[in-house]
Amino acid sequence: MAASSAAESKDRVINLDHGDPTAYESFWRESGEGAYLKIEGWENMSYFSDRNNLCWFLLPVFETEIRRIHRIVGNATADESRHIVIGNGSSQLFQAALFALSTQPGLTGTSGPMPVVSAAPYYSGYPAAADFLKSTLYKWGGDANTFTPHPSTPHNEAICSPNNPDGRLNNPVLLNQNSNNIHDLAYYWPQYTPITKAADHDIMLFTISKCTGHAGCRLGWALVKDADLARRMVKFVELGTIGVSKDSQHRAAAILRAVSNGYESGGACKLFHFGRKMMAERWERVREVVKAKGAFGLLEYPPPSYCGFLREEATHLPAFAWLKYEGNQDIEDIASYLKTEHSIEARGGRNFGTTDKYVRISLLERQKTFDVFIERLSSIS
Amino acid sequence: MAASSAAESKDRVINLDHGDPTAYESFWRESGEGAYLKIEGWENMSYFSDRNNLCWFLLPVFETEIRRIHRIVGNATADESRHIVIGNGSSQLFQAALFALSTQPGLTGTSGPMPVVSAAPYYSGYPAAADFLKSTLYKWGGDANTFTPHPSTPHNEAICSPNNPDGRLNNPVLLNQNSNNIHDLAYYWPQYTPITKAADHDIMLFTISKCTGHAGCRLGWALVKDADLARRMVKFVELGTIGVSKDSQHRAAAILRAVSNGYESGGACKLFHFGRKMMAERWERVREVVKAKGAFGLLEYPPPSYCGFLREEATHLPAFAWLKYEGNQDIEDIASYLKTEHSIEARGGRNFGTTDKYVRISLLERQKTFDVFIERLSSIS
Repeated sequence: MAASSAAESKDRVINLDHGDPTAYESFWRESGEGAYLKIEGWENMSYFSDRNNLCWFLLPVFETEIRRIHRIVGNATADESRHIVIGNGSSQLFQAALFALSTQPGLTGTSGPMPVVSAAPYYSGYPAAADFLKSTLYKWGGDANTFTPHPSTPHNEAICSPNNPDGRLNNPVLLNQNSNNIHDLAYYWPQYTPITKAADHDIMLFTISKCTGHAGCRLGWALVKDADLARRMVKFVELGTIGVSKDSQHRAAAILRAVSNGYESGGACKLFHFGRKMMAERWERVREVVKAKGAFGLLEYPPPSYCGFLREEATHLPAFAWLKYEGNQDIEDIASYLKTEHSIEARGGRNFGTTDKYVRISLLERQKTFDVFIERLSSIS
Repeated sequence: MAASSAAESKDRVINLDHGDPTAYESFWRESGEGAYLKIEGWENMSYFSDRNNLCWFLLPVFETEIRRIHRIVGNATADESRHIVIGNGSSQLFQAALFALSTQPGLTGTSGPMPVVSAAPYYSGYPAAADFLKSTLYKWGGDANTFTPHPSTPHNEAICSPNNPDGRLNNPVLLNQNSNNIHDLAYYWPQYTPITKAADHDIMLFTISKCTGHAGCRLGWALVKDADLARRMVKFVELGTIGVSKDSQHRAAAILRAVSNGYESGGACKLFHFGRKMMAERWERVREVVKAKGAFGLLEYPPPSYCGFLREEATHLPAFAWLKYEGNQDIEDIASYLKTEHSIEARGGRNFGTTDKYVRISLLERQKTFDVFIERLSSIS
């Protein structure tokens, strides 16, 4: 991530490039009294959390709260039929999945690096995650829509749904027996999209960052069906970082507990309702400006669906605005234009496998930053 | 790390395989009142710690305490001439260094994977760290003593001093302009060895695990001279895990602050004195048994040296006992023998690039476990 200046003052660049979920701070300041954590100097010292668990560095208290929040929200099957593998953010778990899938017994030496693909526009982090170590186990294979599977060589498809950057609901593009699917469900939470069913895939990735806003914890979890695959993912996290911070696991457990208590014990901590209200207000303002100015086009999202968690029809409220610039045709690179002319840092379409006529703008920044963004967006025609 | 049962009861396997530094728990229970941490629900939410720092995910409060403890102990140059890069444990930073060294401008495509070597017996984690992703950037090259450098291709040498497993003081074996040295100084603290000078190498790795015993924090730091190299290490941590837990950084800062205060403000928290006393007692008991029984041989360590921190002559008190079995010559694999016959789990010499006549035994486990170990060791002749 490039360094950049802080965001609140009008005369400075506002950074909407990263999806830094600081919008949730105000919620936790007001409603998070149950979510504090105190750690004594002598606690959490060992490498080990539970030597009898397949994921030996996973704290039982964190595992309990992970399974509980999925049960309450209903967004994924997380009962005992699933193994939980945690990582330092879901980025590490995505790589752990690539490692585990490309080291399956029987594969070794049979072919070159296993291709990793995703339907464009795809999350900009996938190509680098697959390629930065120039591994001979796997390599980035590009847009799943234009990828031709090898008849005998397996490949990995990353399916992000709701999708980063554009919020669309994705299903696998490549359907054959050589496809290994990694389902990235970072945004499959009620503040962003209606929960229409409990996802039930072989490999599902989640992260605390987009669920509660605690990106600084660097905590993700994978729900994995196959025990051997889960073991290889654990091995990857073991070899890479010898596990995951126990301090952050305790913290994430406290935070998820506060959220679950808010819904099960009728506490004040109604995170998903706060999130929906905030996202709905922000999307309304984005749509207003886009409509009024006509410089930008927005995707049509699917119609509202019934959300089993909210028990009502719910609209799609993606964490990012995915804008297509339809103004001055001489402007090829809208992200550079926004930065140089309007002091808005955002991520250009090329990073997501499409053209720089598109730009991804985070809607999860602090309110002040979002207000400045709307003001600046209104000045573009 | 293999799962295994808890260690305190006599009739069960005791695990001395991992160097889990739980021996420090008793110190923090008694003297660690200043080291607690309280985190509110709304704190540490952003990905970013300091956008203006080369290491953008490093919290200023942690950086301050890292530089301070090195200044107080005098074990490494950590002034502003050094860039600090943090990682999820020093294992991640070792890999970050390999990545940074093998992606130097000008190298690309000039040759095959850059060899990574270390003088045997070397830390058992190095080979897997270099090889598990089958990278084309770098690969394990084995024992530095038997490695023939390529005339034009650079290589990386890991120098661990005091050395894991055997506690010897290491210097680089390969001295030519193609050598990139990574100095692993995890054990260069006063409880293990006299501090004879401030280490001043280009890349130095440290970890909280062996310094204060907080392995569960998963925090390491690198002191790096070259800014571009440090930037590439930061990039590695960014691509692998998008930074490092801020909760653990705050915790490590609180812990290091308690230790530094103990020496600067005359508090009760004299960690290094506790550590030396404990290690001295444990080593005395190990030597007693080894001497009495004759089944095992121990290395001769260098004579005591003047420790600038303790202001006195200090002996070498390695974190591991590195034992050579000299009993029944039919026993080839001493680690298996200890496990099957004496319920002691330890790491065999083959993992460190030598023979299984050697075994590494952690001296950092809880007192009860150590007592059981001594009792069982006494029964072997």
